[in-house]
Amino acid sequence: MKEQSTDILPFAGVLETTIYAENLEQAKAFYGGLLGLEEVTAKEGCHVFYRCGTTIVLIFDPAITKSQTLDAHLPVPPHGTSGATHICFSAPGRQVDEWKALLQKNDIPIESEITWPNGARSVYFRDPAGNSLEFAQPRLWGYDEKDANE
Amino acid sequence: MKEQSTDILPFAGVLETTIYAENLEQAKAFYGGLLGLEEVTAKEGCHVFYRCGTTIVLIFDPAITKSQTLDAHLPVPPHGTSGATHICFSAPGRQVDEWKALLQKNDIPIESEITWPNGARSVYFRDPAGNSLEFAQPRLWGYDEKDANE
Repeated sequence: MKEQSTDILPFAGVLETTIYAENLEQAKAFYGGLLGLEEVTAKEGCHVFYRCGTTIVLIFDPAITKSQTLDAHLPVPPHGTSGATHICFSAPGRQVDEWKALLQKNDIPIESEITWPNGARSVYFRDPAGNSLEFAQPRLWGYDEKDANE
Repeated sequence: MKEQSTDILPFAGVLETTIYAENLEQAKAFYGGLLGLEEVTAKEGCHVFYRCGTTIVLIFDPAITKSQTLDAHLPVPPHGTSGATHICFSAPGRQVDEWKALLQKNDIPIESEITWPNGARSVYFRDPAGNSLEFAQPRLWGYDEKDANE
């Protein structure tokens, strides 16, 4: 590694993050229906994308993305995983408890709850594909709760 | 699915997203060294976390996270994947070209480049673990480039 970029290129943020789900209809019912994320675009049997603040949550069928090739019109490199990934959504202030109540009302098990050493709280649950999801107060990582909620 | 949450609980954003890498020292040299992400915390042989705008990029050795149990002092549910995941970093304006130049200068192959139908540009490359990374202009998803860069 020859050169650091710290001084010249500040990172603006994470624009896209990815979840894989073999059953996209189930994923849509969960992320778009139950959680209420705003759908940006979808292609049946391939993917569904959601807006979440300044990040787009991409949900793909990994069987499709693993086999995509660079000779396509839009040459997106292949990717795809198996197993449970982890994504945490920002839940400022009392939203952690409000999300917990919504999940419980919809019979989604709360797998774990943590109060971190700095006092921030998290609740953990699973999506239908088994991915590990979390709602956490952004002050867990030193983010201002008001700013994070704007 | 019984109830939508859209009206009552707006999503503030993605607080954490996850990458898995069996060789964490290699991952640190790449994400912290070459790309220059700000390290938040690390535990040798287990994980390293980076700050990226309002999101924390978690990098775990999946062998550790797959075997973690809920009877720990901080009961984080198990997770972990195999295969290449995908994360895209926001690169407003000319940053896409600046990142491309930095990658090339450090002999990181540019796997693909795309100009999307709305004019936004992306460059794709791989991390040492084979994950598919991208720098893209945030207007790809309708985000204001100035706001995204703040």
